[in-house]
Amino acid sequence: LANDNPANQLHVATRMKDAKFIMMDTMNLWIDQFLDGVLEVLKVVDGIVLNDEEARSLGGSSNLIASMRKIATMGPRCVLVKKGEHGSIILFEGRFFALPAYPLEVVHDPTGAGDTFAAGVMGHLARRGIVDLATLKVAMAYGTVVASYNVEAFGLERLKTLEWGDIEARFGEFLRFVALDI
Amino acid sequence: LANDNPANQLHVATRMKDAKFIMMDTMNLWIDQFLDGVLEVLKVVDGIVLNDEEARSLGGSSNLIASMRKIATMGPRCVLVKKGEHGSIILFEGRFFALPAYPLEVVHDPTGAGDTFAAGVMGHLARRGIVDLATLKVAMAYGTVVASYNVEAFGLERLKTLEWGDIEARFGEFLRFVALDI
Repeated sequence: LANDNPANQLHVATRMKDAKFIMMDTMNLWIDQFLDGVLEVLKVVDGIVLNDEEARSLGGSSNLIASMRKIATMGPRCVLVKKGEHGSIILFEGRFFALPAYPLEVVHDPTGAGDTFAAGVMGHLARRGIVDLATLKVAMAYGTVVASYNVEAFGLERLKTLEWGDIEARFGEFLRFVALDI
Repeated sequence: LANDNPANQLHVATRMKDAKFIMMDTMNLWIDQFLDGVLEVLKVVDGIVLNDEEARSLGGSSNLIASMRKIATMGPRCVLVKKGEHGSIILFEGRFFALPAYPLEVVHDPTGAGDTFAAGVMGHLARRGIVDLATLKVAMAYGTVVASYNVEAFGLERLKTLEWGDIEARFGEFLRFVALDI
């Protein structure tokens, strides 16, 4: 459920009877001015993806971890937070997991990085047909990789020419980047 | 080499003839007003540990990755950057590695977290007697764990009662928190 008026999101969500896993996006506008609507949508979705500022606002604490736990009590079993250059963190059924961002020396245009990340996550989940923490971790790694390509050029320029080989190559590099054992 | 006037750091560094691995700390005061001195110390040490704001200032770029690469050209084979609640990142002999912070719902006093992190890193290196990327990664994990205890109470209160069992228990939790495979 892309970022939209919560009324529209609820309208769509309640009609997706066969959906295995519904993830919602939102933004500060809805959190600040239509909180009741956001809370209604949160009760019918499986997950929410938002940035760290939005998460602190919705969760009501300057502490991101506390805010994520608070959001989880509002309904969704998956709370996924994007932190830009600092990576991402998820709370799924009581367990946390975090990934750094892919290290890039040049960022041309960060616009759309968060949406690209979320799309990469959902794409991997759709491909696997499973939603568990192990699959979500790999999905976050794919989301991180696709988002890193997105910021390398203006708008969608880099994504337009992106091929599977590019994604898999950087996915391998990213796994080496985050591996505690070499 | 704890954070100090670069002249003092150089004085100490050049007298530690038997040191296997010298890591320096610094701060914006020295970077801004005594840059030549900082650059002199950088030529004789093995590593530098600093926070992300200091790294961007010393490296001369708003991009942290680019700044870290720039600092590495100034001499040290190890550039270790502390990012507070966002974890830490290292550039060691051309390779990057990053870790998130330990997820804490309550942070009582962040004072000294960076110093505790650096001390944990150096403590693990001293214990192992080896400096390679694999050992540095584990050292960063220990630094993260000790720093997470430090911020749980005011000043050194929590560290005063800390036992090895506490460190090893949270170290295990932290490995599970960052493991891509469950």
